[in-house]
Amino acid sequence: MITLYDYLDSGNGYKARLLLAQLRIPYRYVELDIMRGETRTPEFLAKNPDGRIPLLELEDGRLLAQSDAILWYLADGTEFLPTERYERALVLQWMFFEQYSHEPYVATPRFIMRHFAADSPRRAELPKRQAQGRDALAVMERHLADHSYFVAERYTIADIALYAYTHVAGDGGIELAPYPHLRAWLARVAAQPLHVGLLDQPPKH
Amino acid sequence: MITLYDYLDSGNGYKARLLLAQLRIPYRYVELDIMRGETRTPEFLAKNPDGRIPLLELEDGRLLAQSDAILWYLADGTEFLPTERYERALVLQWMFFEQYSHEPYVATPRFIMRHFAADSPRRAELPKRQAQGRDALAVMERHLADHSYFVAERYTIADIALYAYTHVAGDGGIELAPYPHLRAWLARVAAQPLHVGLLDQPPKH
Repeated sequence: MITLYDYLDSGNGYKARLLLAQLRIPYRYVELDIMRGETRTPEFLAKNPDGRIPLLELEDGRLLAQSDAILWYLADGTEFLPTERYERALVLQWMFFEQYSHEPYVATPRFIMRHFAADSPRRAELPKRQAQGRDALAVMERHLADHSYFVAERYTIADIALYAYTHVAGDGGIELAPYPHLRAWLARVAAQPLHVGLLDQPPKH
Repeated sequence: MITLYDYLDSGNGYKARLLLAQLRIPYRYVELDIMRGETRTPEFLAKNPDGRIPLLELEDGRLLAQSDAILWYLADGTEFLPTERYERALVLQWMFFEQYSHEPYVATPRFIMRHFAADSPRRAELPKRQAQGRDALAVMERHLADHSYFVAERYTIADIALYAYTHVAGDGGIELAPYPHLRAWLARVAAQPLHVGLLDQPPKH
């Protein structure tokens, strides 16, 4: 059985949990508390020198880091990843957009607001990050004005990657009201078969 | 002929230029001056709503953004991208590492030091970014202590993605002296057939 090293509140980890559920793949879940340094221990750094979750461990012990690389590995050969070359590249385009232009500005404000007190100096980062987060949501809104999903007019791992932190952007002080096409897409994603929520406990095995 | 919209000093654009040269693919080069807002015009935003270079335009007009997605599209089916499923996922793992944990901390200091005056408030970002950049180089150094390249013990687009800004990290005040394995890998990459430099003028067509 594969193992997912993760932290339940992580949207990056949630990407893997959501796809594993939709692929009906059983897995062992190992939770590490990132707030207590459990991803910076010598044991974990031996598995992932970058010291981050999620980390996928295959049955034979091979390891794979980076949430969107994990999505790609699990989805390849399934309905969640197109087979046509250009469409596959577009899936990657949106996943790199997510990690570069979206995650630091939509996920990080949420992390700061959930884990740092109102008087923490980290809160000073919020206005600039939130503004860049709104820019990222505006790019998504513009795409979704003409499209039902991000690639190939169907639900793929590009949608999973972008859904993970977008649907909880409000936790980081970024309201979704100004983005009607985006909100309709969030509802389409949440209505997919076998959908699970970010904080749903993974199945026990 | 394909078209690459780019800015010569961009390491992200350089990734595409290097691979295009090594694949012997001719292309039309359109330079946009990001310092003069040429990627934020209505004309360019119609092509890439994210307003960034590099952007690849295929012969039939289809568009592809994000440097590492462009690398994947161009390399698929060539010697620069493995065919085995896990190795392909590892290529993505390192490319997502590059965009998330490396580029903002190795490339951005270079950008700030090259484009903003010594008294610019942007310079205040440097110490923290440089420290995180050194963390990223330490992760690479640790991998390269036991490996000749990032994936499959051969030169792939994972190496191109990481080489682009690593070899000019010094421009951003991050010295490479503490990383001997990394420096040996840089030399191996630079010795690949048909290698071109970051600031080499693209061929005219």
